[in-house]
Amino acid sequence: MAVYTDITETELSAFLAEYEIGGLRSYRGIAEGSENSNFVLHTEAGEFILTLYERRVDEADLPFFLGLMQHLAKKGVSCPLPVERRDGGLIGRLAGRPAAIITFLEGIWMRRPAAVHCREVGKALAELHLAGADFPLSRQNSLSVKDWRPLWEQACDRADEVEPGLATEIEADLSAIEESWPARLPSGIVHADLFPDNVFFLGENLSGLIDFYFACTDFLAYDLATCLNAWCFEKDFSFNITKGAALIAGYQSVRPLAEAEAAAVPVLARGSAMRFTLTRLYDWLTIPDGALVQKRDPRDYIRRLRFHRGISAASQYGWTP
Amino acid sequence: MAVYTDITETELSAFLAEYEIGGLRSYRGIAEGSENSNFVLHTEAGEFILTLYERRVDEADLPFFLGLMQHLAKKGVSCPLPVERRDGGLIGRLAGRPAAIITFLEGIWMRRPAAVHCREVGKALAELHLAGADFPLSRQNSLSVKDWRPLWEQACDRADEVEPGLATEIEADLSAIEESWPARLPSGIVHADLFPDNVFFLGENLSGLIDFYFACTDFLAYDLATCLNAWCFEKDFSFNITKGAALIAGYQSVRPLAEAEAAAVPVLARGSAMRFTLTRLYDWLTIPDGALVQKRDPRDYIRRLRFHRGISAASQYGWTP
Repeated sequence: MAVYTDITETELSAFLAEYEIGGLRSYRGIAEGSENSNFVLHTEAGEFILTLYERRVDEADLPFFLGLMQHLAKKGVSCPLPVERRDGGLIGRLAGRPAAIITFLEGIWMRRPAAVHCREVGKALAELHLAGADFPLSRQNSLSVKDWRPLWEQACDRADEVEPGLATEIEADLSAIEESWPARLPSGIVHADLFPDNVFFLGENLSGLIDFYFACTDFLAYDLATCLNAWCFEKDFSFNITKGAALIAGYQSVRPLAEAEAAAVPVLARGSAMRFTLTRLYDWLTIPDGALVQKRDPRDYIRRLRFHRGISAASQYGWTP
Repeated sequence: MAVYTDITETELSAFLAEYEIGGLRSYRGIAEGSENSNFVLHTEAGEFILTLYERRVDEADLPFFLGLMQHLAKKGVSCPLPVERRDGGLIGRLAGRPAAIITFLEGIWMRRPAAVHCREVGKALAELHLAGADFPLSRQNSLSVKDWRPLWEQACDRADEVEPGLATEIEADLSAIEESWPARLPSGIVHADLFPDNVFFLGENLSGLIDFYFACTDFLAYDLATCLNAWCFEKDFSFNITKGAALIAGYQSVRPLAEAEAAAVPVLARGSAMRFTLTRLYDWLTIPDGALVQKRDPRDYIRRLRFHRGISAASQYGWTP
């Protein structure tokens, strides 16, 4: 829930003069997206999303993010297309922040996704992985396995404030994950944050993927593992194997997992749950109450971590060869 | 900044089936409107605003608010038109809240209005007053002069937390306003909250008025006085008489003020500043930090109160007969 930076009509009109999308007709701040300020923008040429990048996004990464969206859209992945400025660039400045305009995507994100949606997401994720294969830029994942311990060290002293015993519990999980993390798996462009609010549907058909601001280069199967966490747990934190099977089958209908990838799914899923536990825990402990940044409960992911601890094979998530 | 209630696609699709505006294509929560949850809604028939009325709006008032918008729109005032349901009603229920769909209005609200915009607002306000004359419903103003003292009594003990000496200062202002409040002036439908964020422009032309959720029956000139407060003070709280003159002239180009109304402008402006001082002060002292309801600084209106204290004639706001 956001809009950290407001903009005046004068600033915005001057900014729009750098584009070939006509004059300003309206803009309304939208209450979605947890990192940036987003506006639904109407111009004489139609409807767009205007994004102002806030401090949590590194400006140096923007050419990667926007270039990737452009690359994927041109390869037929349904995702927002960054609008080119008159000078050919994709990034401008507005109200002192880097800013970009992207096309508006119709569709609804599923507050309660069903197995049919999970299958579609799996398919779209694999298509994204294939389409990303020839994208020329790369970006190191700044929230991958090697980054978890430094993050944990900033939070461990206070972890028991969230739940007594948590410090010991997470420490053990983290060590186990670090020890069994695969050294090598097929890598490429991953979305890294493909939660339900980043996937739009029209009816049962997936209409687009959004929010590429965590995209990076990492194991492809790690992206699938993140989707298992984000899409296949119920509100009571039980794992729904029907949804897991649909997600993985959808993925494999486009890109079958290699044997080593399938074998790694349990540790990747556990690691992905650790990544979200740690960032949420860190935010939970450090962001003051009442700040505009949305704080998500880390316990949602601790519950997932506990589930993954008892899993030893991808088949337990619904995988079949 | 809002969206207090989120809605699922299933609930929304069922709600939309009560309307003749086709299937759902997208909805995005918007970060504007301080009292309700608002969404930009796309259906097969086009673009709309979906509003869920939160607890601060009395459900019994909705037929007045929505009926008024329908009445005004039909009389040519540019404001959102509530969309009729298949059963002919304007109000439904969604996610446990009363909800309505209104048409989407193009335009931009002026973060920094100029005199030309003030003139347009004055004109539109007078047109609204004339168009409201034959609206059959009425609604008592629940924030009029008689309501200020009860509100003040809930805040006065803690007023000095905002600024030392404030309790004595506001008490004196309130008594002075109560003593000199006019007994009788031309009355009718007033908007009562026509702040810049409730008025849209396309270029210099006013394209519409929104947010009728404070509308009520009161002195017409009181509405103009509220606009003097909302539109004609600079960010440093100085009064801009050029803007005041433009606002009043715009108003009088449609509906000239009676002599008694012009004579009452100073006390009405002072009273209107008191109304916003008191509601902001009350919210400031009672809403916890970090709540989603936006808290506005009461000192912005205390500064206005101090200005009005020294005014004795409408000409000092830019009025000419």
